[in-house]
Amino acid sequence: MSTNETANIGVVGLAVMGSNLARNLASREGNTVAVYNRTHARTEELVAAHPEAGFVAAGTIDDFVASLARPRTAIIMVKAGAGTDAVIDQLAERFEPGDIIVDGGNANFQDTIAREKRIAPTGVHFVGVGISGGEEGALNGPSIMPGGSAESYETLGPILASIAAVAKGEPCVTHVGTDGAGHFIKMIHNGIEYADMQLIGEAYDLLRTVGGLEPHAIADVFAEWNKGSLESYLIEITAEILRQVDSATGKPFVDIVLDQAGSKGTGVWTVQNALDLGVPVGGIAEAVFARAVSAKPAQRAAVRRSAASRPQPQKADAGFADDVAKALYASKVVAYAQGFDAVLAGAEKYGWDIHKDRIAKIWRGGCIIRARFLDRIAEAYTDNPDITTLLEAPYFAQAVTQGEDAWRRIVATAALSGVPVPGFSSALSYYDSLAAERLPAALVQGQRDFFGAHTYRRTDREGTFHTLWSGDRTEVDVTHSTH
Amino acid sequence: MSTNETANIGVVGLAVMGSNLARNLASREGNTVAVYNRTHARTEELVAAHPEAGFVAAGTIDDFVASLARPRTAIIMVKAGAGTDAVIDQLAERFEPGDIIVDGGNANFQDTIAREKRIAPTGVHFVGVGISGGEEGALNGPSIMPGGSAESYETLGPILASIAAVAKGEPCVTHVGTDGAGHFIKMIHNGIEYADMQLIGEAYDLLRTVGGLEPHAIADVFAEWNKGSLESYLIEITAEILRQVDSATGKPFVDIVLDQAGSKGTGVWTVQNALDLGVPVGGIAEAVFARAVSAKPAQRAAVRRSAASRPQPQKADAGFADDVAKALYASKVVAYAQGFDAVLAGAEKYGWDIHKDRIAKIWRGGCIIRARFLDRIAEAYTDNPDITTLLEAPYFAQAVTQGEDAWRRIVATAALSGVPVPGFSSALSYYDSLAAERLPAALVQGQRDFFGAHTYRRTDREGTFHTLWSGDRTEVDVTHSTH
Repeated sequence: MSTNETANIGVVGLAVMGSNLARNLASREGNTVAVYNRTHARTEELVAAHPEAGFVAAGTIDDFVASLARPRTAIIMVKAGAGTDAVIDQLAERFEPGDIIVDGGNANFQDTIAREKRIAPTGVHFVGVGISGGEEGALNGPSIMPGGSAESYETLGPILASIAAVAKGEPCVTHVGTDGAGHFIKMIHNGIEYADMQLIGEAYDLLRTVGGLEPHAIADVFAEWNKGSLESYLIEITAEILRQVDSATGKPFVDIVLDQAGSKGTGVWTVQNALDLGVPVGGIAEAVFARAVSAKPAQRAAVRRSAASRPQPQKADAGFADDVAKALYASKVVAYAQGFDAVLAGAEKYGWDIHKDRIAKIWRGGCIIRARFLDRIAEAYTDNPDITTLLEAPYFAQAVTQGEDAWRRIVATAALSGVPVPGFSSALSYYDSLAAERLPAALVQGQRDFFGAHTYRRTDREGTFHTLWSGDRTEVDVTHSTH
Repeated sequence: MSTNETANIGVVGLAVMGSNLARNLASREGNTVAVYNRTHARTEELVAAHPEAGFVAAGTIDDFVASLARPRTAIIMVKAGAGTDAVIDQLAERFEPGDIIVDGGNANFQDTIAREKRIAPTGVHFVGVGISGGEEGALNGPSIMPGGSAESYETLGPILASIAAVAKGEPCVTHVGTDGAGHFIKMIHNGIEYADMQLIGEAYDLLRTVGGLEPHAIADVFAEWNKGSLESYLIEITAEILRQVDSATGKPFVDIVLDQAGSKGTGVWTVQNALDLGVPVGGIAEAVFARAVSAKPAQRAAVRRSAASRPQPQKADAGFADDVAKALYASKVVAYAQGFDAVLAGAEKYGWDIHKDRIAKIWRGGCIIRARFLDRIAEAYTDNPDITTLLEAPYFAQAVTQGEDAWRRIVATAALSGVPVPGFSSALSYYDSLAAERLPAALVQGQRDFFGAHTYRRTDREGTFHTLWSGDRTEVDVTHSTH
């Protein structure tokens, strides 16, 4: 079935993502693509449907391995989980030192780190690669986030660059860091995607409930926004979705969709890992929680029954849509700032040499959060890689400052109107926390010292202190105590 | 050193918590307490300092075990982690079927589940017990949350009841469920504690920044609140802390404390586990994040530099403090509702027969979140154990409804004034999400269908649907497809 050592790349797992990636690879000059699927019928279907691809079809895993030129390079595109390990083992048994096994699925980066450790003694490279862009991206050009060794990237880099999306002339791929770095960055990408989608949802809700606009009119607003600094794939498709009319009922599509949002877990992972890293990611967490709340119909029905009459929405003035745009933009800056903080903290914890400007660049095309915005982020980190937060980059500081009053008005209006804005308000509180001269954290630390003798530091001198709350309430210096 | 089989209970690990718990046990009629510590000098100190306790001091672990009457019952009070396993193993090797090993430290409940599984084949009971109340609670009466087998509770229950806090005549202890249930419930308790403290911090910040009150005047407000429905230990100590004057400077204590709050991890665990359980806990998450933000001095300094001039606080009218009280109360109801949702979800996932009313009751005394409020929660769950959320319990529904306008005004005022209120606003958004007739989750689900073919359900009929967004945009029924 297979010709020996003729393919420079192979794909294992030919469901939609795998098939599309294989077709994408085959369409680029210089690539010969071996394909293998556990159920052989699927391989045959793919090969028959795409004669132009010149696939090298393998009927067995041995055939597949024999068909690969050295260093053998195979991309696994199977559902993340135990199945991935089975395929890795099949390949690892047959591969030789210097060969490359790529996991292109949605693995948890911790699993990728563990797998790389497990495979490393064999001399085979194991590389976790985050791929974003959905089915269409896989076919036409995704954003690609490879981890793994620098050595493996010498072989893999050009192949991935050949199929990646292109933004401003640059392929949306870079070696983000070793071992699990690629899947980590993909996870953060998805976390930011949750936040972005939630913020857009809140903007829509405000324009509809307070602004009094119908979906088609809101579509126009989003289409207009998509010509300016908010330009992004998600804003673009939101306009499309809001313009869609349900043919069965003639109603706006958005009104016939059940308002319960699903999720596949990468948002949860992002927040859980950010918590481990000590990075506040309220924008992402609130987006994850908002989906969870939406999917609790029994609680929602119960509270609707027991709640008093809903508040009357505030009146929207002529500048309302502009205010919403500014609130959306400022909240987006916060969500991305939090996401990049998590990138930095992950890089520090796991020892990855991550370049934040390059991450921003490879997210400019192919992936779900692709946006004009990411050019600004890339510039901010190129200009000064050492900024402590995106919010201090001059461009973003100015953007937030200019939108600040509108942002405040929108959060206030939403609160008074009964429109839930967990994303907008969490972002504003985050900003106000960073900007505050003093935080009530001093009181919280005082409480901790009161009930748990957790000690505190002082504003006016070094050291660690404890007040004898259940004694005479004098302060003791416990700097050198082992308490 | 030890008399054979004379002690009905033993304590291993005599740091402050262990010593205090041992003294508490020894002070109750019927208890004879064996004590053991790896460093024997500490045992000698404790015994010498408290001759009234009649401790049975053990110099070795063998002596300790020999000193215990059967079924042998030992409470381990060592720092959570590997040290716990070492002591568990020492005891398990010497104990016999029917004996009871108790871990009274702050273990992660997942570790407790694993340890119980590991010990079970020996016939020895392993019981994880959550203990809240800090050093003082350990000495005078904590709230106690035991997991483990029902059989072990027959022996352990009366001993724990003898030392627990008492609320309304009932000891603050109940067998919450099997294996890790006790440590799980303790974790949720601590998560709620984070939220409660954060909300109090926000109330203080508003009274100070918008209300223009000095700490001593805010202390009076809190003391007044402590006479009403907000009565709680945390409100009480907040008044004490705000009244405290720093003797070195003559300034209010709260102003000389560095405004960076620490944390020990149980808040993080609560949110991570709630995410696994699909339970939205924004109130707890925002509290955890608020502490994390406070402890980022470099980011705070950078944003203070780059932010425009801070907004002018809104004017507070005469009813401002009352509004803050109502906002605090409503936000507290949300935080507790979320915490109890996590309790329920944990019970379902791990197979624990948890009684929510009993949990509320044992939190009424001894622990950090003890409050009048918990009587109302216990009543709500006693009246109707099947309510889907605390927010639908008539008492709380009415309380929130009555405070709703004030809550909205406070969140709006905070947004306009630049006072960060992540807790208040997250809680309000949560409530508004549950109360909303329609949520923008419909749009989010539409986006998911657009870019990822994640499908959607409809409001008007059963089934699963997908729109051919990159095709002719007709809808296909994929209910029975394997897509």
